[in-house]
Amino acid sequence: MEGKEISRAVVKRLPRYYRYLGELLESGVERISSNELSDQMQVTASQIRQDLNNFGGFGQQGYGYNVKYLHSEIGKILGLDRSYNVIIVGAGNLGQALANYVQFEKKGFLVTGLFDVNPVLQGIAVRGIPIRMSEELPTFLKENQVDIAALTLPKANAREMADVLVENGVRALWNFAHTDLHLPEHVIVENVHLSESLMQLSYNLNRYNQQHKKQ
Amino acid sequence: MEGKEISRAVVKRLPRYYRYLGELLESGVERISSNELSDQMQVTASQIRQDLNNFGGFGQQGYGYNVKYLHSEIGKILGLDRSYNVIIVGAGNLGQALANYVQFEKKGFLVTGLFDVNPVLQGIAVRGIPIRMSEELPTFLKENQVDIAALTLPKANAREMADVLVENGVRALWNFAHTDLHLPEHVIVENVHLSESLMQLSYNLNRYNQQHKKQ
Repeated sequence: MEGKEISRAVVKRLPRYYRYLGELLESGVERISSNELSDQMQVTASQIRQDLNNFGGFGQQGYGYNVKYLHSEIGKILGLDRSYNVIIVGAGNLGQALANYVQFEKKGFLVTGLFDVNPVLQGIAVRGIPIRMSEELPTFLKENQVDIAALTLPKANAREMADVLVENGVRALWNFAHTDLHLPEHVIVENVHLSESLMQLSYNLNRYNQQHKKQ
Repeated sequence: MEGKEISRAVVKRLPRYYRYLGELLESGVERISSNELSDQMQVTASQIRQDLNNFGGFGQQGYGYNVKYLHSEIGKILGLDRSYNVIIVGAGNLGQALANYVQFEKKGFLVTGLFDVNPVLQGIAVRGIPIRMSEELPTFLKENQVDIAALTLPKANAREMADVLVENGVRALWNFAHTDLHLPEHVIVENVHLSESLMQLSYNLNRYNQQHKKQ
């Protein structure tokens, strides 16, 4: 499996499979056919078979998928068989929301640091993690292994902080700032642009209204 | 322009054009060629021309695009030429983060209500909006026009609240709960699954590591 190129479209669908399989596992389901999974996920059974065939096909004809095995294999593909040290840069509401979200920790994403420029926040602890000042970042990064940094700060400061992080060895950024980061190729950036998601919603709402006005 | 079907891929790119054009406008830029925009956005100029041609082509050969006009037209397509009343269901950190984000209001998304099930939060105001108890939702929805509801609450309660919202006339849901909502076709749902975004990041990080180990 290692080394095989999987299309970006399939990779984007994997977390959803992972979530459904995890829920099945919690409910005690041991095996599931692609047809049953298709009903639950509202995806065609042939899409499911095609997607899962990318990993050598965990299913057996007429027997279904082994839920636990498939969940664990998809987890490995997604890199969830190890843990990650995550710091959060920007300890406002959004940063604190991420720090408080225990589900991330269950999946192996451990918040090990919180940073902000606002001195009022200094030392306040979120789930036992004290908020540090952003100027301490370079030292912190030299002394601690950090795998992922979440950028939950205004766009005006995002690029500068991203540079500090990358210069000090952080290789993956989870960017919530409403700006594009231009970083060296070895740095992995995943953007969450909430405004853009909201605009998709307003687009679709208006589209629907227009279409139904005309009828 | 009205009624013309625009592909989902193009629609997904529009908010990014809107953001760049907005920044150009703020910097006082009046005209821009597809080549210059291409440099800034790191998208090919031909992609830009193709995308913007969907709307009848705002550009003139050798003259470039009128930034203000294009920004305003894309805004109209995205439905940003009107305002929306938004309520936030789930007033934890994430819900409060959304309520505090002034940029949404600037784009016409006005937060008009905040709801939670936790009595400790009752009456606490976020940007002047008092947190109400979720049981008040049906009455609130009967008395107030609500266009969009953000669901920032645990997945265990998300489906039930979504049903209450839809039964009381809300037609667009911005779903942050880590579950799929199964709702009537006339309801528009935009999902923001943060865990899935984080898994894309861990996938890409591991992928990169594997590829560079092998070399």
